Amino acid sequence: MSVVGPCLCQLLKTLTPEENTQCHYGLYFQDGQRRVDYVLTYHVKRPGAARHARTTSRLLTDNPLKGLAGTPSWDEQEDDKRRRREEFEKNLLDMGLELERDEDGKTPGVGFLKIHAPWNVLCREAEFMKLKMPTKKVSVVEKINSLISKVLEPLRPSVEEHKTKNIKHLSYTFSREKQHLCTKAKYSMGQSSFNLLHVLRGVCETGWLLYEEWASYSVFYKYQPIGLVRKYFGEKIGLYFAWLGLYTQMLIPASVVGVIVFLYGCATVDDNIPSMEICYPKENITMCPLCDKACSYWKLSTACATARASYLFDNPATVFFSIFMALWGESAVSSSSSSSWPFGVRTLLFICLRKCAQDEPRFSFSLKISLASRPFETHFKTQIKLTCRDRLPAYMTNLVMMLLMIGVTFAIVFGVILYRISTKAALHMSSNPITRSHVRLTVKTTAAILNLVVILILDEVYGAVARWLTVLEVPKTDKSFEQRLIFKTFILKFVNAFTPIIYIAFFRGRLVGRPGSYLYVFESYRMEECAHGGCLMELCIQLSITMLGKQLIQNNLFEIGVPKIKKLIRYIRSKRQAFQEEERQKRLQRYEIDHFLEPFAGLTPEYMEMIIQFGFVTLFVASFPLAPLFALLNNIIEIRLDAKKFVGELQRPVAARAKDIGIWYNLLTGVAKVAVIINAFVISFTSDFIPRLVYQYTYSNNGSMFGFVNHSLSYFNVSHFQDGKEPMDPLHLGYAVEICRYKDYREPPWSTSPYEISKEFWAVLAARLAFVIVFQNVVMLMSDVVDWLIPDIPKDISMQIHKEKILMVELFMREEHGKMQRMGSTASTGAKQKGSSNSYPPVPVARQRSMPPAHCYKPNNV
Amino acid sequence: MSVVGPCLCQLLKTLTPEENTQCHYGLYFQDGQRRVDYVLTYHVKRPGAARHARTTSRLLTDNPLKGLAGTPSWDEQEDDKRRRREEFEKNLLDMGLELERDEDGKTPGVGFLKIHAPWNVLCREAEFMKLKMPTKKVSVVEKINSLISKVLEPLRPSVEEHKTKNIKHLSYTFSREKQHLCTKAKYSMGQSSFNLLHVLRGVCETGWLLYEEWASYSVFYKYQPIGLVRKYFGEKIGLYFAWLGLYTQMLIPASVVGVIVFLYGCATVDDNIPSMEICYPKENITMCPLCDKACSYWKLSTACATARASYLFDNPATVFFSIFMALWGESAVSSSSSSSWPFGVRTLLFICLRKCAQDEPRFSFSLKISLASRPFETHFKTQIKLTCRDRLPAYMTNLVMMLLMIGVTFAIVFGVILYRISTKAALHMSSNPITRSHVRLTVKTTAAILNLVVILILDEVYGAVARWLTVLEVPKTDKSFEQRLIFKTFILKFVNAFTPIIYIAFFRGRLVGRPGSYLYVFESYRMEECAHGGCLMELCIQLSITMLGKQLIQNNLFEIGVPKIKKLIRYIRSKRQAFQEEERQKRLQRYEIDHFLEPFAGLTPEYMEMIIQFGFVTLFVASFPLAPLFALLNNIIEIRLDAKKFVGELQRPVAARAKDIGIWYNLLTGVAKVAVIINAFVISFTSDFIPRLVYQYTYSNNGSMFGFVNHSLSYFNVSHFQDGKEPMDPLHLGYAVEICRYKDYREPPWSTSPYEISKEFWAVLAARLAFVIVFQNVVMLMSDVVDWLIPDIPKDISMQIHKEKILMVELFMREEHGKMQRMGSTASTGAKQKGSSNSYPPVPVARQRSMPPAHCYKPNNV
Repeated sequence: MSVVGPCLCQLLKTLTPEENTQCHYGLYFQDGQRRVDYVLTYHVKRPGAARHARTTSRLLTDNPLKGLAGTPSWDEQEDDKRRRREEFEKNLLDMGLELERDEDGKTPGVGFLKIHAPWNVLCREAEFMKLKMPTKKVSVVEKINSLISKVLEPLRPSVEEHKTKNIKHLSYTFSREKQHLCTKAKYSMGQSSFNLLHVLRGVCETGWLLYEEWASYSVFYKYQPIGLVRKYFGEKIGLYFAWLGLYTQMLIPASVVGVIVFLYGCATVDDNIPSMEICYPKENITMCPLCDKACSYWKLSTACATARASYLFDNPATVFFSIFMALWGESAVSSSSSSSWPFGVRTLLFICLRKCAQDEPRFSFSLKISLASRPFETHFKTQIKLTCRDRLPAYMTNLVMMLLMIGVTFAIVFGVILYRISTKAALHMSSNPITRSHVRLTVKTTAAILNLVVILILDEVYGAVARWLTVLEVPKTDKSFEQRLIFKTFILKFVNAFTPIIYIAFFRGRLVGRPGSYLYVFESYRMEECAHGGCLMELCIQLSITMLGKQLIQNNLFEIGVPKIKKLIRYIRSKRQAFQEEERQKRLQRYEIDHFLEPFAGLTPEYMEMIIQFGFVTLFVASFPLAPLFALLNNIIEIRLDAKKFVGELQRPVAARAKDIGIWYNLLTGVAKVAVIINAFVISFTSDFIPRLVYQYTYSNNGSMFGFVNHSLSYFNVSHFQDGKEPMDPLHLGYAVEICRYKDYREPPWSTSPYEISKEFWAVLAARLAFVIVFQNVVMLMSDVVDWLIPDIPKDISMQIHKEKILMVELFMREEHGKMQRMGSTASTGAKQKGSSNSYPPVPVARQRSMPPAHCYKPNNV
Repeated sequence: MSVVGPCLCQLLKTLTPEENTQCHYGLYFQDGQRRVDYVLTYHVKRPGAARHARTTSRLLTDNPLKGLAGTPSWDEQEDDKRRRREEFEKNLLDMGLELERDEDGKTPGVGFLKIHAPWNVLCREAEFMKLKMPTKKVSVVEKINSLISKVLEPLRPSVEEHKTKNIKHLSYTFSREKQHLCTKAKYSMGQSSFNLLHVLRGVCETGWLLYEEWASYSVFYKYQPIGLVRKYFGEKIGLYFAWLGLYTQMLIPASVVGVIVFLYGCATVDDNIPSMEICYPKENITMCPLCDKACSYWKLSTACATARASYLFDNPATVFFSIFMALWGESAVSSSSSSSWPFGVRTLLFICLRKCAQDEPRFSFSLKISLASRPFETHFKTQIKLTCRDRLPAYMTNLVMMLLMIGVTFAIVFGVILYRISTKAALHMSSNPITRSHVRLTVKTTAAILNLVVILILDEVYGAVARWLTVLEVPKTDKSFEQRLIFKTFILKFVNAFTPIIYIAFFRGRLVGRPGSYLYVFESYRMEECAHGGCLMELCIQLSITMLGKQLIQNNLFEIGVPKIKKLIRYIRSKRQAFQEEERQKRLQRYEIDHFLEPFAGLTPEYMEMIIQFGFVTLFVASFPLAPLFALLNNIIEIRLDAKKFVGELQRPVAARAKDIGIWYNLLTGVAKVAVIINAFVISFTSDFIPRLVYQYTYSNNGSMFGFVNHSLSYFNVSHFQDGKEPMDPLHLGYAVEICRYKDYREPPWSTSPYEISKEFWAVLAARLAFVIVFQNVVMLMSDVVDWLIPDIPKDISMQIHKEKILMVELFMREEHGKMQRMGSTASTGAKQKGSSNSYPPVPVARQRSMPPAHCYKPNNV
């Protein structure tokens, strides 16, 4: 069933809610007294109906409430729907809801069923759902808090809710019998909370406030008014925005540290001995050719620029940064487990978590409606109950398709590699010198763009495939459906986004072979090598192109551009039937206008986008310290973009209760865990950090880095080239080359076992592996320590809870005591019957409640 | 304050509770009607009092309740105490409790204050503590369950509680107003639960049942009656026994697998090629001497027995076993997070967890009493509030002392090593051939015993030191005190128990040097080597001696022997004053007898013992597959031993609510995490598993293990011995030795860099490190997968919860509905006033409750 969306706030700009009588009319029943709390729409099938409503629903009906007769049933299906709808409506009435029908609206083919929930029904449900209610206000004004508030004042949205932030409420499970506890705040509670319980009440004001103070790029630097968002959209969507805001704020320190690390690299690049050695032209190192035949020997000093650029991403600060980011990732995840508050500090997080969970609850009718529709559901479910055997084919299809899709990703990545290798070879062959000089750049750029396009296309394909596969599985509940879909989509999109990157980080340049015995793909293409200085720079380029490309194209083009184009088309069309349309707009009820907005399709795409981004930020952050900064910039736009979408372009979603961000938390935890080990491997295997360390502390003569470049290059005797593989232009450098050098740890040609892997290789490998172990365990230990040092519940909050508890106890006791004393005079005679000899007058039995019977009398047998 | 302990059940053996009038008398107030629910004792100071009560309390007083006059105050302090006690008692009275004083008992110097909690006070507190009450019985009889029950019948204790296991209760937060929901089960609820709420009520029966069906070695094979234990001792102690039982049952599969692994080793020892090669006398390998001068060359074949024995603990099954145990450890820990039920299966665990948390709650007066004494506490706290600066010296002392203690442990371990080295050297020098032949055995045995004795002594010392250090810190709350104490004790005892073992596992035999350049301690003692076949066997011996010794001596000697001796002494003494004592015993009230039992000192020692055992079972399990079996045997005794102690020898502890096992869970998690990495290191570094693998897949000619022994031994030219270090008897083997062999990967004397670490060493090291990474991550992944596959809440239970929820909803709705209909006729006129046009008759407002005022009316402004 679809629900009416937000006010079209553009309409309301000129009208205050009181003046806007049309709005008032649309928001109330015919009597002008009872508010519309919820609207159900259904398809009215009439011969000659001009157009059909987009929304389909299981609860369609065309039977007016006043009686069964009057509308003929068109066919069997229609009849069944009518019967169901009827029963559903009866259930609603049984629960005490009040209904009003509107089938004669300006929108042909669509019937509206307006629902009003009376006060006592709300009370009953609030009690039943064990909603927590603020019972008594306790002012906690601390000096530091108020100081912080003052400093942060300009960052706050101009929304009222924050004014009362420092006033804490004692919360107590709502109970009709206990309402008397809410002594003074009684009526204000009624107004502040219970008004908000009504889904549509106050919609105009809240929607307008959100539109101004939230869904606008001009307030990007402010906190989000999460409380209002929660009130307006429900806890689930509120939680998404709270999480997004929190994650974005967590990105700020990460960006700052990342930029510092990058700047450190820039500042110290001139002091870096290995790149100095490479750039120093006197060091006359002749390198082996980079491709067969077409390429010739080259001077290492020509790789100077690459070596210097590599240093920017491969310096000692990188190691520190990846440890920092591993810890950051863990804490970002653990804070998102309790995410709700746009402050980044756990204290405030926790305050809000409690606020979200306890105070001012949002009332949603979902429980009630699901209860009302339960008979059908049960009926429906028993009809299609599936055994394990029935499910087996679907599961097998799932497994096979998932593997196939992952295989497709691998194949495409391999294809791009082949493209790169073959294009490079072809371009090297080219006789045009300009083409040849731009080989690297051309190949890299085109390949990266190819990769990006493939990722973007496959992303869409995989989304559809995952949905199809999940439908095949026929999960039992909506929740299970959502979880399975998310899980599948996550795996496919993650594999899609990260396979090329993982290839570059861990495989490229490793499966090359050695001069004289290179590895060939399809027997003719040599595998790729990385530029001198490690693959870290290539990884960085690939990472930044994928990340920025995805963000720019997917978010900005798809999310901003496409709706803009749609609007433009709509505008052009509307010009034709301008008058007609305008006339209709005016006469339409609020819910009729909203009915034609895009329906809300779930938060999955939003979360998925963010978790992939989280992957980019954490997984390979060792190679790209600026990733958090780009993510931060993207997210600042993303928040307002999503806000605009939710406020203005989608139907207002049904509010749903949510404790936490659910399966996304598990996925985030998984990504953060994988990030630790991947960063460990990136540092130890992709960067030259470990070889440099090993050289410095074991092979270097004076403990300095001088000689490292020479040490890391092996010797090759050019007479050992395979036939037909030697360079066509051996005198390219102007002299005959006998020995060329290549980057590897192998025995020299003059040793007893020429070109075999040398002892240094194994020593460096052992050091790399040892580093991985140390890194992983240190980070794990540190994140445990951080978890332990920062308690889940901050001290002042736990004090606050304790204080609240004591106050609650006192309030309770005082109330009980007072009651006892009041009752004491009337009931003392009866109580005196119990034999009590030398002790104090027995406390009289609580007898004051006539209904329900008080069973608190002392049983006879005691 | 001290609390009266359990019934001395020996006394009750001949008396049923009804007949036992004395017991009855002791359990009731003077009027014989009101039960004694709690007893406070205090010190009565009178001139000429014969003896002082052992128990001291902050609530001491000698002021009778009847009036302030009559007893003179002896001094200022006494006066202050009296005033406090007075106020405390007034608080108790204010809460509705009834008091009775007994100062003229047979126990001079001790006053007793008996407390009775009337029914309505209990009701109020139950509501306030949000106790969950069973409201309606729903029978869930499943076939499989009943079958399982039948099979397991003989394992169940003959206690009634299990008969009703299949009857589930709907639980609802207790509320006096909602008591009518508990329709039929109303009175039975009153009897079953509320009777048990009274702390002492039913003590005789429960205590006796526990004594027979729990605290007895003859029922060791049965489940524990955890429900009864919980009822009798409170949740905290119940949880300990539930956890202990669960852990013991988790040990069963571990023991079985361990025994299988051990038997596999025994069965395949003859097929093991390396030990065959060693034992085959034709392989004429001459080994380098094991000590300087005194020792001579030796034949490798003499190490045959050791090599075969080593294989028992170092075979491929060991690797499987350590992965199994790592997963086992994680699941044992995660199941102890929800531990409560002696069944080992999560399903039942969960059932019980809910049972413990919701049904039949235990009522403890602790909240009330702490509330009553709050004024003093607050007063007391403000007086001694400490700033950070005040605390600094204590924290520094803590840090220094902890480091010092750990240093002491290291020093002692080093001392034992020195003892071993020097004794071995001395004994080798001995001219007595018998002494020399038993060198290894003598040294090992004495060193292990020395180690054990040191561990046992230090354990006691460290316990005292930790307590002293924690007192120094002046923690704010009792809970914080307990946690800090536990943490410190844990660290010290863990370091104490595991330092020698870690030394053997990771350092012994690694810091030896090589022939011709051995490492020396104090320039004269060569560092220890392990026997041929790796240090795994030595580790196993050390582990088993420490573990068994600790268990036998600490548990059996200290826990059984010492109390027995104490009893004997008491018996001998009592013979002297036999008549006198007997006479007194007879005339004493129950609480007077119990007053002289040992007070309950907390569960810390019990948990600590178990966590150290858990460490032994998981940390080095790769080297000792029988550890779980020994732990299992120990624990079967331990459960009943502790049970006996709690039932018969300690004062009955104050019942305390507990959700989980608290800090112990964190410590267990920590141990389980550390276990993964330690086992990875044990397998890859202590055992020969990786070198064997590397040999088999890279160096072996035909892929078999033949030649491994030869490959793992390096060559040494005896002419390179340092002067004065060569053996005194070079012709011991009957021929002149030129080249001897030693276990290491080093270059041979004839290479270009003799005795340098060889390429094989680095390759093997890399393989070892790679194995650690793979092992750790695979285990972590698998334990995540296991966690994910086994949901926290099993399916049938979550179904059950769902069903309960629906039933609850229906019950609630039906009740609401009925009420509305009943009220409808009377209140309909009033409700009709609200304008309701075309919708259904509005549901009348719930108006039935006169007190408290029903605020559920619709406010005017809506």
